Amino acid sequence: MKIAQIAPLAERCPPRLYGGTERIVSYLTEELVRLGHDVTLFASGDSRTKAKLVPCCDMALRLNPSVRDPLPYHMLMLEQVRRCADEFDVLHFHIDLMHYPLAASLGRMVTTLHGRLDLPDLPPFYAAFPRYPLVSISDSQRRPLAFANWAATVHHGLPEDLLPFSANPKEGYLAFLGRISPEKRPDRAIEIAARAGMKLKIAAKIDKADEAYWDGTIRPMLASHPNVEFVGEINEHDKATFLGEASALLFPIDWPEPFGLVMIEAMACGTPVIAFRNGSVPEVIDERVSGFIVSNVDEAAAAARRVDLIDRAEVRAAFEERFTAERMARDYLDVYRGLEGGLPGVMRPPARVGNGIDLEAMA
Amino acid sequence: MKIAQIAPLAERCPPRLYGGTERIVSYLTEELVRLGHDVTLFASGDSRTKAKLVPCCDMALRLNPSVRDPLPYHMLMLEQVRRCADEFDVLHFHIDLMHYPLAASLGRMVTTLHGRLDLPDLPPFYAAFPRYPLVSISDSQRRPLAFANWAATVHHGLPEDLLPFSANPKEGYLAFLGRISPEKRPDRAIEIAARAGMKLKIAAKIDKADEAYWDGTIRPMLASHPNVEFVGEINEHDKATFLGEASALLFPIDWPEPFGLVMIEAMACGTPVIAFRNGSVPEVIDERVSGFIVSNVDEAAAAARRVDLIDRAEVRAAFEERFTAERMARDYLDVYRGLEGGLPGVMRPPARVGNGIDLEAMA
Repeated sequence: MKIAQIAPLAERCPPRLYGGTERIVSYLTEELVRLGHDVTLFASGDSRTKAKLVPCCDMALRLNPSVRDPLPYHMLMLEQVRRCADEFDVLHFHIDLMHYPLAASLGRMVTTLHGRLDLPDLPPFYAAFPRYPLVSISDSQRRPLAFANWAATVHHGLPEDLLPFSANPKEGYLAFLGRISPEKRPDRAIEIAARAGMKLKIAAKIDKADEAYWDGTIRPMLASHPNVEFVGEINEHDKATFLGEASALLFPIDWPEPFGLVMIEAMACGTPVIAFRNGSVPEVIDERVSGFIVSNVDEAAAAARRVDLIDRAEVRAAFEERFTAERMARDYLDVYRGLEGGLPGVMRPPARVGNGIDLEAMA
Repeated sequence: MKIAQIAPLAERCPPRLYGGTERIVSYLTEELVRLGHDVTLFASGDSRTKAKLVPCCDMALRLNPSVRDPLPYHMLMLEQVRRCADEFDVLHFHIDLMHYPLAASLGRMVTTLHGRLDLPDLPPFYAAFPRYPLVSISDSQRRPLAFANWAATVHHGLPEDLLPFSANPKEGYLAFLGRISPEKRPDRAIEIAARAGMKLKIAAKIDKADEAYWDGTIRPMLASHPNVEFVGEINEHDKATFLGEASALLFPIDWPEPFGLVMIEAMACGTPVIAFRNGSVPEVIDERVSGFIVSNVDEAAAAARRVDLIDRAEVRAAFEERFTAERMARDYLDVYRGLEGGLPGVMRPPARVGNGIDLEAMA
C-alpha cells in the first residue's frame, strides 16, 4: 500500500529523548517499510527513517529555542499533506484533531489518538465529526468518548530486537522508570519496596512542572529510605540494562494511563510488571503470566515477594506474541484495508453534547 | 454582498470586558449590516449581533472555566465555515492562521492579522502561502512580513456615536488607559505627569502576568507621586467620561503596537493624544492636529504643557474623517470587491525563509 504517516513535530521520529507519540510513529513507519509497503513520513526534518521523509520543519520543535508557537508548523505540514493526498491509499494522522477541517477534502484517512481523552473540550468535538474513523491505543482510553467512531484498538508495539531478553537478573531490584510526577506515584513505589524489604532503583526525569513535587515529597522520602537509589534520566541504550537487571517493574499509576509503553519495554526484557489496576493495565498485563495487577500498596508488596513465581521466558513470549512492532503494523494494515469499503459504520453521536453546536442541522 | 465574518472564540462579539480583535469584528459586522449587506458572523454563542449568528461554542472560551484547550472549538468553527462556504461572496477571517490548510477549498477569502508579527515562527509560514491575501491593521505592522501577500492596510474604526465629543474637559488631567505592563510603560506616564506638573489618572487592568511589575515598579511610584490617581479597570461606559474629561491621553508605548485602539477612542472624545513614536503611532496621530508624537519623556512633558494648542473639535473631526466604523467597513468592502477579479497579484516569497519547507517544489 501507499501509506502516509503524519507525526507531531514536537520531537523528531524517533525522539532523541522523551516523546511517546513520535516513538510509536517511528516504530510503525519502519515496520511498514520492512513489510514492503511504500511509506511516506511527514515529520520534523531531523527525523531518521527508511520511508520517504517529507520534512515539515528543520528540527523538532521542542528542542528548537527559536520556536514560540507550534501551530504554524503543523498548519504548514497539513498543507503539504493536502497537496499530495491523492497519491496515497491511506493517510494515517497522529496529530490529534488539527487536520479535521481538512478531512472532507482528503481521501481515506484514519486518526490514532495517543493521549488521554477525559477532557471536557473533546466530546462536543468528536460528536460533531461522526464520520471520521479513530483508533484507540487501548479500550480503556475510549471510555470518555465511547460514542465516537472507533475503527479499532491497536496496542503499541516495539521492534522485536529493541530490548534483549534477560533470563537471570543478577541484581534483582525493583525498578521504577518514567517521570517523577504525582500521577505516576513514585511515592507508592518507595513504599512498596520498603514493605517488601527490597531494593528499588528509580530512573526518571523531573519536568519543570514537577519540581515542587520532587522537592516536597520524593526527595525527603529518598533521604529516609536507604534501600532506594535514584539514577536520574536514562537513555534508550541504558534502558535495556536497567529493565533487564530488575526482578520486576513497578507501575503504581494513579491515573487512566492510555497505554503505558514502559510495561511492554519491561516485558521485552522478560521482566514482570507489578501494576496498579488503572487505565490500560488490565489489557496489557496478563495476570501471573506477565506480572501482577494490584489495587493497593500491600498487594503490590506481596506481589513483589512472589515475583519468582513468574517465568521470565513467558513474559518475553507474551511480549513477542502481543506487543511487537510487527503485530502493531499488521493490525494497522487491517485497519487501512477495512477503510477500502468506504468509511466504516457511522455511530450517531448524542444529539447535543454540552455545546451549542449542531453540525448535523447545517449539513 | 453576502459576507462571512469569522471571529476568534476567546471573547464574545463584542467582548464583555477586554478583547480587541472581537471588538473590531463586532464593529465591522454591525456596520456592514447597517450598510445593507447580508452578513453572517461565526462567533461564540453569547455574541450579540444584527447579522446572522452561527454559534461556534456556547459561550466565550476565556470566560468558560471548563475549557482547557481552545483549539477543538476553532476546528469545529472551521468545519461549520467549510460546510456553507459556497453561500458567501467573501469569507473574512480574523483567526490568524488556523484556516490556512482549508483555504484551498474555500472561495474568495481574506485574512486580517490583528497581532504583532515579529515572531520567528511566522516568516516560514507566510512564505509557504504566497497566494492568500492579507490585510494589515497598520503599515507598521507589516514590517516583519514585508514579503507577504498584503492586499491592503485597513485601520480600525469605531461606531461614530460610541463615544461622545467632549468640548471642555473640566477636570483637565492626563489620562493613561490600558494594561499595567512593561511595554505600555505606565512608569513613563507617571514621569511625564510629574515633569509637566499635572495630575494623572491611570485606568488599567493588571493581568496575572504583570503582577510582579505592578508590585515592584508601579505601586511604589504611585506611593511617591500624590498627583497620580489609580482608578483600576473601567468598563466601556466609564470610558467616555474618563477619556472625555482628560486634557490629553498619554500613550508612552515601548513596543511596536500594531494599532492602539485607545488612541482613536480618545480622538472620538476630542481628547488629543501624546504618543511615543513606535508601531502604528505615526499613521494614527496627525502631528499638532490630533496630538503630538514624541521620542522621550521630556518631549512628552513639553507636549503636555502645550496641549491647549490643539483644537478638540479638530481632534474629533480627524476621528470622524479617518477612524469611524463606516470608513473601516467601506475600506473592507473595497478589499472584498478587489478579490472579485481573482486572487490579487502574487508576490514571490524568498526562496527559503529559515525553514526547510519548500511548498513550491511540491506544487
